[in-house]
Formats: sequence, structure tokens, C-alpha cells
Amino acid sequence: MTATNHFLFELGCEELPPKSLKRLSQALLDNIVAGLQDAGLSYHQARAYATPRRLAVLIDDLQTFQADKVVEKRGPALQAAYGADGAPSKAALGFAASCGASFEQLEKLETDKGSWLIFKQAVNGQATAELLPDIIRKALVNLPIAKRMRWGSFDAEFARPVHWAVLLFGSEIIVTDILGRTTGRITRGHRFHAPQDLSIRDPHEYLGVLRLQGKVLADFEERMAVIRDAANQAAEKVGGVAHIEADLLEEVAALNEWPVPVVGNFDSRFLELPQEVLITTMQANQKYFPVKNAQGGLLPHFITFANIESSRPDSIRAGNERVVLPRLVDAEFFWKQDRKQSLAERVESLKTIVFQKDLGTLFDKTERVASLAGLIAEQLGADSSLAKRAALLAKTDLITSMVGEFANLQGTMGRYYAAADGEDLAVANALEEQYFPKQSGGEIPQAPVSIALALAEKIDTLAGIFSVGLIPTGDKDPYALRRAAIGILRILVENGLALDVAELLDAALAQFSHAFDKAEIRQKLVGFIFDRLKGFCLDQGFSSDEFEAVLAVNPTRPFDFWQRIRAVQNFRALPEAESLAAANKRIGNILKKSEQAPAEQIGTLVEAAEKNLLTAAEQSEADIGPLLAEHNYALALSRLAQLRDSVDAFFDNVMVNSDDPALRGSRLALLAKLSNQFLRIADISKLQS
Amino acid sequence: MTATNHFLFELGCEELPPKSLKRLSQALLDNIVAGLQDAGLSYHQARAYATPRRLAVLIDDLQTFQADKVVEKRGPALQAAYGADGAPSKAALGFAASCGASFEQLEKLETDKGSWLIFKQAVNGQATAELLPDIIRKALVNLPIAKRMRWGSFDAEFARPVHWAVLLFGSEIIVTDILGRTTGRITRGHRFHAPQDLSIRDPHEYLGVLRLQGKVLADFEERMAVIRDAANQAAEKVGGVAHIEADLLEEVAALNEWPVPVVGNFDSRFLELPQEVLITTMQANQKYFPVKNAQGGLLPHFITFANIESSRPDSIRAGNERVVLPRLVDAEFFWKQDRKQSLAERVESLKTIVFQKDLGTLFDKTERVASLAGLIAEQLGADSSLAKRAALLAKTDLITSMVGEFANLQGTMGRYYAAADGEDLAVANALEEQYFPKQSGGEIPQAPVSIALALAEKIDTLAGIFSVGLIPTGDKDPYALRRAAIGILRILVENGLALDVAELLDAALAQFSHAFDKAEIRQKLVGFIFDRLKGFCLDQGFSSDEFEAVLAVNPTRPFDFWQRIRAVQNFRALPEAESLAAANKRIGNILKKSEQAPAEQIGTLVEAAEKNLLTAAEQSEADIGPLLAEHNYALALSRLAQLRDSVDAFFDNVMVNSDDPALRGSRLALLAKLSNQFLRIADISKLQS
Repeated sequence: MTATNHFLFELGCEELPPKSLKRLSQALLDNIVAGLQDAGLSYHQARAYATPRRLAVLIDDLQTFQADKVVEKRGPALQAAYGADGAPSKAALGFAASCGASFEQLEKLETDKGSWLIFKQAVNGQATAELLPDIIRKALVNLPIAKRMRWGSFDAEFARPVHWAVLLFGSEIIVTDILGRTTGRITRGHRFHAPQDLSIRDPHEYLGVLRLQGKVLADFEERMAVIRDAANQAAEKVGGVAHIEADLLEEVAALNEWPVPVVGNFDSRFLELPQEVLITTMQANQKYFPVKNAQGGLLPHFITFANIESSRPDSIRAGNERVVLPRLVDAEFFWKQDRKQSLAERVESLKTIVFQKDLGTLFDKTERVASLAGLIAEQLGADSSLAKRAALLAKTDLITSMVGEFANLQGTMGRYYAAADGEDLAVANALEEQYFPKQSGGEIPQAPVSIALALAEKIDTLAGIFSVGLIPTGDKDPYALRRAAIGILRILVENGLALDVAELLDAALAQFSHAFDKAEIRQKLVGFIFDRLKGFCLDQGFSSDEFEAVLAVNPTRPFDFWQRIRAVQNFRALPEAESLAAANKRIGNILKKSEQAPAEQIGTLVEAAEKNLLTAAEQSEADIGPLLAEHNYALALSRLAQLRDSVDAFFDNVMVNSDDPALRGSRLALLAKLSNQFLRIADISKLQS
Repeated sequence: MTATNHFLFELGCEELPPKSLKRLSQALLDNIVAGLQDAGLSYHQARAYATPRRLAVLIDDLQTFQADKVVEKRGPALQAAYGADGAPSKAALGFAASCGASFEQLEKLETDKGSWLIFKQAVNGQATAELLPDIIRKALVNLPIAKRMRWGSFDAEFARPVHWAVLLFGSEIIVTDILGRTTGRITRGHRFHAPQDLSIRDPHEYLGVLRLQGKVLADFEERMAVIRDAANQAAEKVGGVAHIEADLLEEVAALNEWPVPVVGNFDSRFLELPQEVLITTMQANQKYFPVKNAQGGLLPHFITFANIESSRPDSIRAGNERVVLPRLVDAEFFWKQDRKQSLAERVESLKTIVFQKDLGTLFDKTERVASLAGLIAEQLGADSSLAKRAALLAKTDLITSMVGEFANLQGTMGRYYAAADGEDLAVANALEEQYFPKQSGGEIPQAPVSIALALAEKIDTLAGIFSVGLIPTGDKDPYALRRAAIGILRILVENGLALDVAELLDAALAQFSHAFDKAEIRQKLVGFIFDRLKGFCLDQGFSSDEFEAVLAVNPTRPFDFWQRIRAVQNFRALPEAESLAAANKRIGNILKKSEQAPAEQIGTLVEAAEKNLLTAAEQSEADIGPLLAEHNYALALSRLAQLRDSVDAFFDNVMVNSDDPALRGSRLALLAKLSNQFLRIADISKLQS
């Protein structure tokens, strides 16, 4: 059994940036754990704690010493170890000296590749307490801090000024300097409730001392749970349910050491504003949790968290109500003011806003998207004038005051304002849904007019940005083209739409007047989109070779691609699949290597096996025709699987390379006929066995 | 000031049918109020109360007497009133005798149309107390009771046996017989808590006596509110929100006189069942309110209402838990069992179920719908194989055990089972959404595959049922064809789809092999659908003449119709509209009445006004062409509005019927040219000024 101790490190700082607190905390834990692993130190369990004023790591049962180990040094080869006289050579003695050993202490190592002199040295493990300071310093240096700062007269740099550092191993302090502070056992409690020094005798006391004496909940996850529960209880008291989004919950937990809920109210006249506006106002600016009724409508209350148990909670409430009021009044003003000008009247102003310097203004983009959306709408059986109308208005909400203030409401305000203008409901919805999917896995547009606009918007952006050479590389994707490409694919595949993405790209590219190589850009765009499709297919459980098998036949309709890959996966599970994949690979090689071209017509065949294969291939060709017309690739491949025995018999009994060129040509033609049937669905020779 | 009294009528019964209690109660109030109005009796306020065991009406400040009035009888004409001798004639004396009056008591009435003898008789108003018994009896006879019953040895008939009747006017009993019971002031309280007689001294005591002494909440609305609040409070205690649907709330209120909430629990393993299954099990069979968490997921609890304050609430809870358990076990069994056979494997069984005797089985319908859905999918740019697949599976969930037990889960279970079978998500969703919209104003399908199936399903039903002559008349619409037609229209109009409903009907009708007059049925179907469109347009605020103006040009694409009617409404608001509508009407009449046909070409014109009109008409024709191609009917009509001055000048200065037949023909052609431009949008001559 190894001796262990509990370990605690706490860094006390000025208030850390709330949005990165959780990430910092996790990184500190990860870095320290990595340092321990590098040092070969094991432990039972490691946990991170974090509050606005502290980062801490607590490790249970950390080994107190590294294990002892034997280090092996390799010296000269055995044949060079002795002189002709049988005495140790100069090289051997030199090696022994370099190891601080006598020649007698050396040993021999014999392997397949030769024999050498070696020296085995026992190395005692170091004390963990000696290793920890450097492990911690290295962990701190490697934290993901965008901007480090210096403070006072210290040389140290950190995200915020550091005021204390606790470093305990067991009940002992490991005394060292961390970011300019000498480590000890003294932490501090809540800034207002318990600003005095608090002494930690043992790492396991940490949470308890802070909670009971310090009025600090050091556990981030626990604090989130406490906030969630307190918000819901507070909401219940005013007959509602707290509306809690994960990001805000985390941020509030990163702002409070001792979260105390406060329910505030606002004038119910503001409930006439769009719900999204109120929620954004409360969440983004104020870090308040909105309160909803059971039907999902907002109530005129909010829940905020004070970092203090106030003796005058009413004044905290009143203060918050005073602060949010002007925000709500602003929002109300925007809502009234914006509606004085219709979206249609704002179109002209789009001429003054540059979309991208080589691609013109938002108005130019609007015109392109409108024409594309109209085209798509026609393919979707939707009235093209509706799609064009939606495209015409699509960007106008960007120049409303509300979206100017709350950029995240783009599209949503478009929907509200369009509805207020009396635009068609389908148009209003499309204004919001043009941006769908908004995040990975997010909702996609399903209504035809929305689909037309969302596709047109994304395809124009992709085509335009590619055409001016701004193709995403590595991490750089400022126009979010990857997201756009995935959005296009999901819209087509999940809605089962038969649209051809290459055709749409052609239409989009044809609208640009600047000079570029259309064929090259088109090819790059198709490649870019199908790279995304590959990721999408792999995510959905298809394998890489299944993807390649379909890609080889170049389908440009993503949903068609999807149907084919499903059929290929299905086919692969059949007992005939492996043999047929191999046969197709063999046919491919034969046709590729043959100096003679297949005959145009299959002439007289000789062997029974080839005659049978011809009959079978003609029958299967007739059978799969109607299935392919229905895009029923799965059934078509199942039908082709029945060819297996005939194909096997052919290769067992027929030599393709007959001396008779006519017969050879016929045999090649027979194989081509067979192979082409598979290739109407996918190149199954790509399937790995 | 009129003397008034409060009035109370209460009928005590055995437990009334809960689903019609509220309707019965309202009808009793309406009928009594109608009786009072017929009798000319006024009052301040009338309210209805109802519990499972009683119907009551309370009226404040009801007049105690009808007003006195003067009745006028008309006798012989004045010229026949006196004999040649100036003495009263025989006729006059006879009239006086018939009035029970002397000749001297008669008066003279002189009007424009002649003069007569009349007798004015003062009639005293009757006492309300005397009138009330018959008003009540008549009100009871006219209640909407599907099945009346008799009880004991009584002749009376009512929905349930009647046990007592309270009839008070002020503090006095109006003694009479109501449904075999002698009226009094004695009511009874809660069947278990307060079964004794309770005396009501005054109508205004009614609610209070029942509440305080009787443990009965007689006010239906109040009871609903109490149940809603109690359910929510009970749900909060288990950390949830009660899921309360309006129908069930009403039913629970109709089942309890003194509602007491009881929270019960079920094994959380059942939460693996589809949510809709659990909700249906709890609501439909058990009348329980489900409990949801803030995210809308179900919790393993329910809230039921006991009609009693039990000293052993736990045994009520346990009893309910015991009762619901086998239901949940059944549902769980169905869920497991049903998934053992895929939906695709069930298709064959559809051959054994008759859809309609002349239209074959559900399998036949499935085949028709599949072909139609495929056709529509192609028009929607969706993959037709997906739509056909969805159609193939569309009716298969009807033969699952779950839908056999819970018919309201049809479609929903289709979605779950299809997803479990690994069908495409678009297919699974379509199985549920084929039934959308489920009620007036309900959600419509938006996703292309869902739209294809929903339209195909409805159009096949409409076409099929019409083709076998079962056209809905009056209230009879067993196949819900009106709902289907409105569904088709809403799907096309609200999604902005350009599909032609007549074309779809043709495709549907072509699939039936039985003999019928296709042209006639098609015409009836189109008429039926456009009748529904009229209702839809009127509901949306369009007027009847706007509808007729568009209908006149026979658009068969509902969304196109919609765009036209919006343009017409828009046009009508223009200052030029009235004059142009009149001009078009005049042109229509001229063309119709003219014996000469318009010239094929407009030849030489003479007057400046007609030359101007020709120029203007040619210009507008050129301008509206592109607008109409874009379906921009509103702008096109605005453009045509500019013709007003030229048209007015034409009619002011030109006589169409010139003696020169060539000139006349040219003028007629000019007018036809003009009129045809309007008719490309709508027949605005139909607009009423």
C-alpha cells in the first residue's frame, strides 16, 4: 500500500471573468492532473471548485512519493567491450565511468538485434511535496487566459490580481511562491459576509469551512443547482416557473459566491412587447431569469440573484426594478418606433450597407437571394412571389433599432414586424426561419417559403464568398460557411427534398458579375459541401467506405445521396455483399487493365457460366429499372445481390482473356454490363471487407 | 319604481350526465330568461348554477308584476258607425257589446287610411309568481336532453330522476308541481358530508347555505377555478405543473360538488411510454390530470379529485393508484407488442378492412393515396418515394393494439412506430401530420412530405365519397368532408402553395374504376371546395362581393385565388375603384347586349377620347404583363386604376353605338380589350358600391 495525502490548492483573486470561469476552473484541474500523470503520481479522485474570487483543486489520496524505479543505460556493443586481450576495452571503461560505476557493475543485454553492455541504476522516487510547486506553476502558465494582467509591484501575470494562495498536502503547508504570493493555509470568506481570514487545517475541511464560516459555496455545480432551485421556488411564489437557460445559469453561478434570490416586478404593460424582446432584455443586459406561467407566457416578474443576504432585500429588489425599467422603456420605444416604417419601406436603405466589398451591398444580395428563392420556390411548388417577397424583406430588420440593440433578435424581429405590416404569415415566418438551423442540431425550416429563403440565403453566401476566393481554411471561417453548408444539407436531407445542390450553385454563381473561374469555383463548392455531407453521414453512423462508394457515382442531390448510402449500408449486411464487392473490384481492375475495349454488343458466348451470367444480368437489368425510377435503391441492391452465384460461377469457369478477340470483347462487355448495373446505385467495389 | 324580488329555482336530481351538465345548465338559464322576456318581465341579472346533483337559476330583482297595459280593439269604420238617423248603427252596438262596453265608451281612431271606432281597454299586469310555474315547466320541457327517463310511479320525464325542487320568489315559496315534485325551500347538501335537509330562506342565501352547511360549491365556474388552482398547488408539491385540458377540467367540475385534490403516483418505468399514451390513459379513462416538469416532460404523478374530504386520503390515493396500474400495464404491453411487427409488415392486413363499400379496402385507399402523394411530392420538390412510403404506412397504425384501445392516438402512434422501425423522420412525421389540421384553426402540416400525404389523403376521400354519391347535405357529413376541404384550402393557402386543386381532383378521380359521371362529380367537388373557400375568406374579413369578383374568373389554385382577393380588397380602397367598377359593369352590359360582335382588330378610331383610351389601354396592357407573371395582382390592379380618367372621358365623349358598323366594332373591341385586362385578375364589376 502506498502512502497518500489529500491535496488542496486554492488561488484567491479579484473577481474573475464570469463567462470563462468554468472553463478556467476545468483547465486548471486538467493541467494539474496532467502534471501528476507526467510525474507518475496516482490519486483517488480530483475535483475542481470555483467562485468569482477563487479557483481551487482538491485531490483525494494523492501518493506522497513517486515509485522507485530502475533506469537502464545502454553502453557499447558486446563485441567492442573487450580488447583482443580479453580485458575491458577503453570504450567499456569509459561507459562505466560515465555511469559512476565500476566495469564489474555493468550487465549484459542480449537481444535479436545484438548484445550490449548496460548499466542498471535504481532511482528513488521523489517526494510529491517537492514536485507539486512546479506542477502547479506549469498548470497556471498553461491556462487559457486571453489577456493576462500584472498588479502592484509583482512580476507575476494572471487573469486578475492574485491575493492569496492555499497549498496543503495533508495537514502540511507546502511553502512556495505562487504568482507572487507565499502559500499558506489561510483563505478568505465572502467579501462582505466573512472578509476575515479563515484557516484550513486539512484539505477536506475546505468546502465546509467556506460554507459555514465563509458564506461561500465553493462548488460551482452545487451553486448552479442551488440557483436553479431557488429561482424555481421564487417563481412559484408569484405563480410561475423560472425560465432558465443553461448559459445564464452558468454565468449567474460565476457571479455569486452566496446566491440569494430576489423577485422583482415590472409594469405589466411591457407584456405587450414580443416575448423574445423581454427575455433578451432581462437575460442579456441584466442577468435576470424571466418568469413564465404554465402556458409558457411571460409574467411581469423576474428573478435576480444578490451575492449577499441583505437585511433590506426590498431595497435590492427596488434597485433592480429601477435598473431594468429604462431598458424596458427603450425596448418599448424601439418596438413602437420601428413599426412606424414598414419593412418594405426599408429595402432602399439596404443599398447603403456593404455585405462584402466584392459582392456589393445588402441590397445587391437581396436581389440575388430573391431570384434564387423564387427559383427554389417554383421547385417546391410554392408561389414564387411569396418567396421573392420574403427575400426582399429578409435583411430589412437589420436596420431596425431593436435589432441594432439586440443583434440576436435578427429574424425574430423580422417576423414580428412583417406580421405587423400585414405581410403573409408564410413570409413573416420565413424571415425568422431563414437563419435556421441556428446551431448544431437546431430546428430546420420545414415550410416551403421558409425553405426557399433559407436555402437561397445560404447558397448565395457560399457561392459569393467562394467566388471572391475567401475559402475557409483551418479555424478561419468568418462567414460561417461550414455551418451554412451543413444547414443546406440538413434542410434537403431531413425534409426529403429532391433538389440538386449543384444546379442551385450554378444558378447562384451565374448571378455574380465579377470575374472568376466558374468551373473551378463550382467544383470547389461541390467538394466543400460534400465534405460536410461526409461528416454528416459519419455522425449518423455510416462508415467512410460506404460514403466513398456513393460519392464515386457523383450524385449531386443530397437526399438522393442519402437514400443511396442507406441502401449501401443495408446491402452490406447481406451475405452476398462481400463476394460481390470483391467481384466488382476485380471487374474494375480487368476493365481498367484490358488493352482491348469491351465490344459494343455482346456477341456469341461459349461457356455455360457466361451464358448464364448474361441471362441473369439481363433479367436483373430489367428488374431494377422500375426500382431505380422510384429511387428504391435498397430493393435494387437486394435484387442485384441475387447475381452472386452467377458471378462466382463466371469467375470460376471462364477466362476473360480469350485468344479470340471477339469472344474477349464480348466477355469484357458482359462484365461492363454487370458492373454498370451496380454503378447506377454506388461503386460497391469501394466497400472494405 | 317597480317592485322586484329575487328568484331562485333549483332542481335536485340524481347524478346528471357530466359531459352535458354545463350545456344543460346554460340551456335552462336561456329558456327561463326567454320565458321572462316573452312575459315582458325584466330583471337585473340572471345566473345559472350547476352541480352533479342540481341545476339552479338565480335571478336578481325580477319584477313582481307585469306592467299594466292598454289594449286597443278596432271596430267598424266610422262611416258605418251611425245610421242615416245619426244613431249608432247595429254594427257599432254589436262591437260595443262584444267589448263588454257601452257605445259611449268607444272612441274614434283617425288615420291617413280611414277612421274607425275603437275600444281601449286597460289590462292589469299579471303577478310574476303566477306566471313562473309555467315558464319553468316550459323551460324544462325544452332542454336539450337526448334521452329522457321516468322514475318511480311518476309520469314526469327528465334526464335523471328528480328528488326535490326549490322555488322561491323573494322569501316566499311559489308552490307548484315541477316534474312530480312539490316545490319548497328545502335543498340538500353534499351526498355524504351533508345529506340532511337545508332550508333556504331567501334566494341570495343559496350559494352560502350550500357552501357552508352543505359542502357544495354550486357555482360551476367557481368550481372549475378551484379545481384548477388545487391541481396546480398539488402539482407544485411534487415539483411539477398540472397539465390541464379544458374539456377534462369541465368534466371534473361536473363530477364533483366538493372537489378535493389527491396526488397519486405511478411507477416511473412507465415514463418510457410515449407521453401521449400516458396522458390519454390518465385523462380519458381515469379523469386524472397529468403532472409535467418545467420542461414539459411527464412526472410519475397524477392528480385526481375526490368528491369528499376523506379522513383517509391515503386510501383514496392508493385506490386510484391501484385502478390506473392495470391501464398502464396494458398500455405498456401494447407498446411492446405492437413494435414486434413493423408497420410495413402490417400493410397486407389493410386488405381485410373495408374503407367504404364501393371504394374498396383500406389497402385500395392506400394505393390510391400513395400514387396521389407521389404526384404531389413531385410538385413540391420532395422525393416522391418518401411520400409514397408515408402513404403506404399511413393507415397501418389503425391495426395496432394501441390505436385499437385509444382511437385518438391514430397518427401519433404511427409516428412513434415508424420511428421505431427506422423509417425516415420525414415519413414518421407525415404519419401523424396526415390528420392535420385536427380541429378548426389547428396546426397545418408544413413539411413537404407531410403536406403531400395530408393533401392526398383528404383529396382521395373527398373524390371517392363524392364519386359514390354520398355528398354531404345539411348536418350530415359522416366522412367529415367539409373539414377535409377546409384542411386542403388552409394547407395550400397558408403555405403559399401554387398547386391546382382541380388538377389534383382530376388525378384522384381518375383512380376510381366504378362508373360515375366524372365531369359532373368534378364540377360538384370544385363547387364544394370553393364554397368552403368562401367561408374561409369571409372569416378572414373579405366581403362576399370581393369573393364573387374573383370567383368569376374561375381560378382553381386556392393560393392564387387568395392573392387575387387580397388585391381586390386593396383595389377597392383606392379612390378610382368605384368609378372603374361601374365602368366595368357598363362595359359588360354593352358587350352582352350588343348585337354586333367586337371587331377582331381595332380599326380607325375617330374621337380624341377613344384614341386616348386605346393608347392608355395598350400601355397598361404592356405594364401589367410582367406583374401578372409574378402574380403581383395588387400592383397590376393599382396600375389599371390609373385608367380611370381615360375611361371616364371615353364614356363622356364617345357613343359606342355609332351608325358606322366598322367604327362600332372597333369601339366594342376597345372596350373588350379594356375589360379583359381587369378580368385577368378579377371581375371587378361585381363590386357593390
